[in-house]
Amino acid sequence: MVPNEWFLRYPLHPGEVALVGAGPGDPGLLTVRALSVLAQAEVVLYDNLVSSEILALLPANAERRFVGKERSRHHRTQEEIIADLIRFARAGRRVVRLKSGDPFIFGRGGEEVEALAAAGIPFQVVPGITAAVGAAAYSGIPLTHRRYAHACTFVSGHSHNGREEEEIDWRALAAPFHTVAFYMGRHHLPEICARLIAAGRDPATPAAIIQKATTPQQRIVEGTLATLPTIADQEGIGAPSIVVIGDVVRCRATLTEAAHEVDALLTS
Amino acid sequence: MVPNEWFLRYPLHPGEVALVGAGPGDPGLLTVRALSVLAQAEVVLYDNLVSSEILALLPANAERRFVGKERSRHHRTQEEIIADLIRFARAGRRVVRLKSGDPFIFGRGGEEVEALAAAGIPFQVVPGITAAVGAAAYSGIPLTHRRYAHACTFVSGHSHNGREEEEIDWRALAAPFHTVAFYMGRHHLPEICARLIAAGRDPATPAAIIQKATTPQQRIVEGTLATLPTIADQEGIGAPSIVVIGDVVRCRATLTEAAHEVDALLTS
Repeated sequence: MVPNEWFLRYPLHPGEVALVGAGPGDPGLLTVRALSVLAQAEVVLYDNLVSSEILALLPANAERRFVGKERSRHHRTQEEIIADLIRFARAGRRVVRLKSGDPFIFGRGGEEVEALAAAGIPFQVVPGITAAVGAAAYSGIPLTHRRYAHACTFVSGHSHNGREEEEIDWRALAAPFHTVAFYMGRHHLPEICARLIAAGRDPATPAAIIQKATTPQQRIVEGTLATLPTIADQEGIGAPSIVVIGDVVRCRATLTEAAHEVDALLTS
Repeated sequence: MVPNEWFLRYPLHPGEVALVGAGPGDPGLLTVRALSVLAQAEVVLYDNLVSSEILALLPANAERRFVGKERSRHHRTQEEIIADLIRFARAGRRVVRLKSGDPFIFGRGGEEVEALAAAGIPFQVVPGITAAVGAAAYSGIPLTHRRYAHACTFVSGHSHNGREEEEIDWRALAAPFHTVAFYMGRHHLPEICARLIAAGRDPATPAAIIQKATTPQQRIVEGTLATLPTIADQEGIGAPSIVVIGDVVRCRATLTEAAHEVDALLTS
């Protein structure tokens, strides 16, 4: 089905590093180019959100290195990961840095390629389905919609490092007719909702939280800015989760009635 | 390389409609699930931004129907497209609605699935690499970066229909430490830049426009909010184009020196 020559189009050279987006979970959301590059990998540094099904696609003799971060459990620092990538590339190996979602949306891919560039290491970036896009498709929530939202914003739920110049502009996120998706939004969910309301967003704005999006364990609960934190607690929603806020969440009720896909995947 | 059973995981049933994201252009950015669903298609309604290489992957006996819109040349109205989807599904055919990028980010996929749901037609949504994500990876611009942006917003460059409640909130898009990507941003580029400056964004903010992202014809030019419209005119940048605004555009100069991928693909 996939023409064989496609797999020749996307070489991974000795001494090169490919940052590859693994998508949000469902291995079917890997791209053809990602598969092609993975098949050439000699050493793979992967994060904790990359599924075992995807790791099973790696060549049998590829060296697998888990470097993945979790909240408050960093297996390897960012500096160590970068040093590893440079070391393996300088040894002439074909190196894959496998990241969940897309390498350039959160996940610090930008910093990694900057370091590779500074070290003179050739690299390539293979985009992936980012978590919010996967979660939207698999839960029946269009991120944009002519009636409800002409823009969508992806923002990190972890951007609370105290440096003032990097603070989230809550007023900007409170604009109506605008979808906001918080990545890794579970931990700060009460603060996220409270800040948006304080910044002027209607407390009745529909909101949903989607855990383990696109996997067989996907769960979703819906509420409003005012109610979602309590509902998520009651339903025992944990990490990793995407929070989607905006009138587009209303579409889900209509859509899930007919959606073969959604009915089959969702438990709630 | 792709286990054969994967292609059995993603059935497209008779009488069902699959909204499939074709990605931004490079056929290697199709997902495995999209390929699987395309291989089962009996009738395919596709947009004008779907590449001929991707259409070549359709089964030989699949009926191909071009319904694609261009600015001021609509081949088929949205209502006609929806009526077609319902008619083919009711006739028991396996129907694919093939859209460039992702079905739920612009492109009116939400409206189409709402209409299918209302008509009782089963459907599924197969996410795709959205244009801004593809453009970012293929031009060396991380959409988020710890030093430059903790959020990115996707907004339509065509959202100027005069209805006040749907107006873009330019003040929200003018927030610093925030990347903004305008889809189909070429036509309104001077207005987009002027409005962001008027709303308070620094005229020296780096900005880039990327035409035909991820294809061999990709072109990119860089400037600032103040200079990009003139530079894009001088360089003859046309549609379809993505406009990326924010300090992340600075990364490109460093990155492109080493990037094997980017060097090979870009002409500027």
